[in-house]
Amino acid sequence: MARELNGQTIAFLVADEGVEEVEMTEPWKAVEEAGGTPELISQEGGSVQAFNHLDKSKTYDADRGLDDADPSRYDGLVLPGGVANPDMLRADPRAVEFVKAFFTDERPVAAICHGPWTLVEADVLKGRTMTSWPSLQTDIRNAGGTWVDETVHVDGVLVSSRKPDDLPAFCEQMLEQFAAHGSRTASPGSRSGG
Amino acid sequence: MARELNGQTIAFLVADEGVEEVEMTEPWKAVEEAGGTPELISQEGGSVQAFNHLDKSKTYDADRGLDDADPSRYDGLVLPGGVANPDMLRADPRAVEFVKAFFTDERPVAAICHGPWTLVEADVLKGRTMTSWPSLQTDIRNAGGTWVDETVHVDGVLVSSRKPDDLPAFCEQMLEQFAAHGSRTASPGSRSGG
Repeated sequence: MARELNGQTIAFLVADEGVEEVEMTEPWKAVEEAGGTPELISQEGGSVQAFNHLDKSKTYDADRGLDDADPSRYDGLVLPGGVANPDMLRADPRAVEFVKAFFTDERPVAAICHGPWTLVEADVLKGRTMTSWPSLQTDIRNAGGTWVDETVHVDGVLVSSRKPDDLPAFCEQMLEQFAAHGSRTASPGSRSGG
Repeated sequence: MARELNGQTIAFLVADEGVEEVEMTEPWKAVEEAGGTPELISQEGGSVQAFNHLDKSKTYDADRGLDDADPSRYDGLVLPGGVANPDMLRADPRAVEFVKAFFTDERPVAAICHGPWTLVEADVLKGRTMTSWPSLQTDIRNAGGTWVDETVHVDGVLVSSRKPDDLPAFCEQMLEQFAAHGSRTASPGSRSGG
């Protein structure tokens, strides 16, 4: 099945610190390998401190901060986990508005592990079914969603997984959704290579 | 006002890793200085890894694990924060049941910062008003509680605060509630010293 993301730009939204490294880097590689352009958006646009569970790992340079990020520029959104990452993002109104914009016109969103907390804050889960790190299940249900314990779950444009072990299935379904939705910026001809 | 905790044993419930150190140690000192006996209960009863925000700090030896902790033995409960700490506790059914027991017979519970997530999981917030680290406010409201932005809030036996800066007011009100409730284990004569 074609998963051609040529011309697509995918936003990776993370807090300035706390993102689970592999939940950012693996989907990032998957987007690049499918021909898309990932862009790292952090709160302030500087250095992002990644974590491996509760241990600090490498830092990454964000491509831009939320003050300079127009959500209409992106064809899809990835929300990695790390317990502290969405805890900071959901408290930043700029991040919550950024996330809401993707649901307003139904562009694909892929969230893994603790990442869905920002969706709880954005109040976009009513009537939706998803999975997550299990500790979030009550918050997701209380926000009006239905929680399932699955490697990956797809509900419309929302792709969700539970943890790093689920990354292969998560990336696979995320790319399917991005490819199915197509690019909102590229000309039709630019997607004919697949 | 007398804050005499002689004869009282206060449970400090934390995950095996992730507790915000000062939110454990400051209330601990306050209980000791008021004549009470704090007891550190962790998930498995071994070493507890404390944090200073997202940096690892010291480790502490738990007094017992949840398998050996009978909630009826304690006159009050303290739930410190640290973003990872309640995220782990709420996913441990033993911790959730332990917390519920205090609300069943209205014994005092003091929760600070991210600590209230375990109360969300225990489904004990319907009709209650509390504060917390601001990122939890939507989860608290969605669980049926009312969230307020206050240094410390007291609603019946529930004492809550937002962050480490609030610790002086938190400890003050926590001790008031513990003292007002009294000891369920000591003989009446043992509390006559105040």
